[in-house]
Amino acid sequence: MEKGSLLYEGKAKRIYATDDPDIVWIHYKNSATAFNGEKKADIAGKGVLNNKISSLLFSKLAERGIQSHFIKQLSDEEQLVKKVDIIPLEVVVRNVIAGSLSKRLGREEGEEMPSPVIEFYYKDDALGDPLINDDHIDYLGVATSEERREIRDMALQVNSVLQTIFNEAGVILVDFKLEFGKDREGQILLGDEVSPDTCRLWDAETRQKLDKDVFRRGIGSLTEVYAIILERLGGTAHV
Amino acid sequence: MEKGSLLYEGKAKRIYATDDPDIVWIHYKNSATAFNGEKKADIAGKGVLNNKISSLLFSKLAERGIQSHFIKQLSDEEQLVKKVDIIPLEVVVRNVIAGSLSKRLGREEGEEMPSPVIEFYYKDDALGDPLINDDHIDYLGVATSEERREIRDMALQVNSVLQTIFNEAGVILVDFKLEFGKDREGQILLGDEVSPDTCRLWDAETRQKLDKDVFRRGIGSLTEVYAIILERLGGTAHV
Repeated sequence: MEKGSLLYEGKAKRIYATDDPDIVWIHYKNSATAFNGEKKADIAGKGVLNNKISSLLFSKLAERGIQSHFIKQLSDEEQLVKKVDIIPLEVVVRNVIAGSLSKRLGREEGEEMPSPVIEFYYKDDALGDPLINDDHIDYLGVATSEERREIRDMALQVNSVLQTIFNEAGVILVDFKLEFGKDREGQILLGDEVSPDTCRLWDAETRQKLDKDVFRRGIGSLTEVYAIILERLGGTAHV
Repeated sequence: MEKGSLLYEGKAKRIYATDDPDIVWIHYKNSATAFNGEKKADIAGKGVLNNKISSLLFSKLAERGIQSHFIKQLSDEEQLVKKVDIIPLEVVVRNVIAGSLSKRLGREEGEEMPSPVIEFYYKDDALGDPLINDDHIDYLGVATSEERREIRDMALQVNSVLQTIFNEAGVILVDFKLEFGKDREGQILLGDEVSPDTCRLWDAETRQKLDKDVFRRGIGSLTEVYAIILERLGGTAHV
């Protein structure tokens, strides 16, 4: 497999072509961004940690039957994944009240919800990724109602598997964001990444934040807490 | 029927008890408010217009089988209605892109939608009445999933009836906000009011705004355009 030209550069990843048109080469960058790009920093070691954690979690999800774009980890900062057309929805699954939901509903951060809450955000930086409902999705045409239900079901399955994994690691899975894409055959696959950039993770005992909130809120070392997550999941932070 | 003590004073109405515990007496005020109360004014004649338009529309809805709290118009500014426990949801039905939806989705005001879009907002002034989805409603417990579906169906029926009424009056029903309540038996009834305070209404030919947007945006006389709506619906603005 050969690395080809740069196809796209996002906030946290660069995507390159390969000699197979159905496969792309992903490079995890060291940049951290928050608040729709308003807060930015370069953090040495972040790319390695996110790539390792995401590779590990995609592998564990695949073992439990959840199809993603992930093919394999190539190096410390690189992955091979199936090329998909990303569906412009950010799918948020929430188990515990935190972040924007706390503000939206006026409920205390930390309140556990009796069943998971799913939210769809329209993936559009210029609009600030607004919350949308099922009727908005139908109107926008970004997914059919059947695809929307399939995405919802997959998100709930991912939640169930990740909760088990993090629970065994002594970590509370507070909430997380997923993205989905369609491959050449139109099959819906989990895409993007699953990492402390996209999940809120709290230590089960101390409730210490072990995710990007340490960067968003300026309350600790991002790489220190990401390394804790990687090691709790059975990975090795330092080589 | 006797008017009793003041039970509640809202932004646009005062509600009084009567000698029947299941019936309340509503007085439509002359106050206009917008942007969650940030813009305010007293406008002579507004209460009469809203009371007359709302009484007329509730009567027409009842003729088409849609149950509301409305019993009868008592005077220029007063109505008798059934006492209901208001469900804390603002139910918005949209036929044409306008207002906050235009900003949320980045679409041009005036774009017609192929089918109505329903939105639920959590009725809470302190939170700014945030948009919420079905999962949020389940979590908040403000309505059961069965009640939510019933409200949605009723809102679509109201839309269908109002579209016919306004179409015959040469008016485009762009969007509107409904509130629902439960009576003593738990039956869900349409509540609040249906008026140019709660509907976006455009002249079908000129697209002139005939609703509270003239006040919100400071682009004309509120009572002039409300009087046009009342007269187009077959009512009499001046006595």
